[in-house]
Amino acid sequence: MTAVRPFLVGLVGSGVTPSLTPPLHMAEAAALGIPYVYRPVDIDRLGLRAEQIGEILRWARALGFDALNVTHPAKQLVLEHLDAVDPVAAALGAVNTVLLGPDGDVGFNTDTSGFATALSTGLPGVTLDDVVLLGAGGAGSAVADALLRLGVAHLTVVDVDPARAGALAESLRQRHTAAVAVAGSAELPGLLRRADGVVHCTPTGMAAHPGTPFDPQLLHPGLWVADIVYRPLETELLRAARAAGCRTLDGGHMAVHQAVDAFALITGRTPDAARMGRHFRDLVGAERADLALPA
Amino acid sequence: MTAVRPFLVGLVGSGVTPSLTPPLHMAEAAALGIPYVYRPVDIDRLGLRAEQIGEILRWARALGFDALNVTHPAKQLVLEHLDAVDPVAAALGAVNTVLLGPDGDVGFNTDTSGFATALSTGLPGVTLDDVVLLGAGGAGSAVADALLRLGVAHLTVVDVDPARAGALAESLRQRHTAAVAVAGSAELPGLLRRADGVVHCTPTGMAAHPGTPFDPQLLHPGLWVADIVYRPLETELLRAARAAGCRTLDGGHMAVHQAVDAFALITGRTPDAARMGRHFRDLVGAERADLALPA
Repeated sequence: MTAVRPFLVGLVGSGVTPSLTPPLHMAEAAALGIPYVYRPVDIDRLGLRAEQIGEILRWARALGFDALNVTHPAKQLVLEHLDAVDPVAAALGAVNTVLLGPDGDVGFNTDTSGFATALSTGLPGVTLDDVVLLGAGGAGSAVADALLRLGVAHLTVVDVDPARAGALAESLRQRHTAAVAVAGSAELPGLLRRADGVVHCTPTGMAAHPGTPFDPQLLHPGLWVADIVYRPLETELLRAARAAGCRTLDGGHMAVHQAVDAFALITGRTPDAARMGRHFRDLVGAERADLALPA
Repeated sequence: MTAVRPFLVGLVGSGVTPSLTPPLHMAEAAALGIPYVYRPVDIDRLGLRAEQIGEILRWARALGFDALNVTHPAKQLVLEHLDAVDPVAAALGAVNTVLLGPDGDVGFNTDTSGFATALSTGLPGVTLDDVVLLGAGGAGSAVADALLRLGVAHLTVVDVDPARAGALAESLRQRHTAAVAVAGSAELPGLLRRADGVVHCTPTGMAAHPGTPFDPQLLHPGLWVADIVYRPLETELLRAARAAGCRTLDGGHMAVHQAVDAFALITGRTPDAARMGRHFRDLVGAERADLALPA
């Protein structure tokens, strides 16, 4: 009668009920023979406010949770409730993984590490001198940090909200030595012409926001294109980019690697990233098959 | 990629950290191939009060729990927070199992059903005309209810606190037709001489309360003896009873059958009661081995 203590994990955020992260973690745990239960905690459905994140942490610990992933809109709000924060997450000001361990509640950010791994393994060897970032929200902030940690020398932040772009650029300049500029969408033709790569971090291209974030005519074979949208994995932007001869990276890579890194933090075990990638693509495929069923 | 939704269950009560019920459920679930996580929620360790049971239920539901077992001191307190209560539990005024399902929070009592099964399967065919119950606390109340449901014709309740014995007897008389009497320990010699069986529901005989609840000289071969203490399984009372030629039932039977019934309610699957019995005895054995290790 061995007693392997199962892991108990939650995902706290708005609209997380259909998230693929819980089944992705559980499939990997099953493959490793680790008992692992991962529950979505959808604050919208539960009538909870993101400001209750401290209370959610306390109750999750009381009820035996080992860890929580935290997503929009609580990634920043959670910070003040933690006992310790990993330096990368602290610099970013956002936490997506909290270990509820014997040392207290400790926060990490695996969006940053996840995007860094996604880019370096999914587009190995691409030039990083000059990169354009589209979208200065939470995802864009984590991606920007990863890009600068990977060695991007010139980053240009583009957002429909110039103030938000400016604030992100200012915050990046305070903690990185790279040149960080801000630009409006009107400047994209010139920016993309000389850029090595572009990373897309807005909702455009998701099922609810069809289209491309900029005129696909601006794409050229010298530009790599990374999208963080993963529903669908094949966005209009990526389709156009491939047609234009660009190297591309779909949003599944970041989604998988943030989960790989979170799983490793939570379990202390190194998951099989390639297997998690296959799990993820199976889950996305199953979901698309569900969506295709007649109502 | 099949998605078997794992079960998530908690045990809420005072001092439940070392309870064998969570590993007992998990071992049976593992044998059935059901992903199942069962966490103790020890209100003493967490600094929670039993009066917070309503809050505990709400948060357990929010965080994705399917069910809770509830034990001392919250079995009565939980009632007012439920959406529905099984009639047996309602009559008893105590709930030890709450399903947090789509129909709301629904309470059951598997201490009663568990003791009834324990006695009828563990001591089949014993005479039930005249039974003495020692201990009128929560466990004694559940056992009394089970005894009367099994057809005991004359039940005598004995407790060091005459008021508590009287209150239990009065409540039993209101919902059962059997003759229910109250007696003090001084009357035990006469009571046990003519009784068919005695059920022991006080802490005497546990590691922290060594000894026997009455003079073992009162034991005789015509008396069956059931103990609900299971730490240790072999109490001084049962040892003396066997030496006196009595048929005996140790506390493991009730502990196992309350878990069997709770597991069935929670999962909708019929567990293998014999296998759970073996799990339980393995767990108790492992615990005793642990205790025997030098510090």
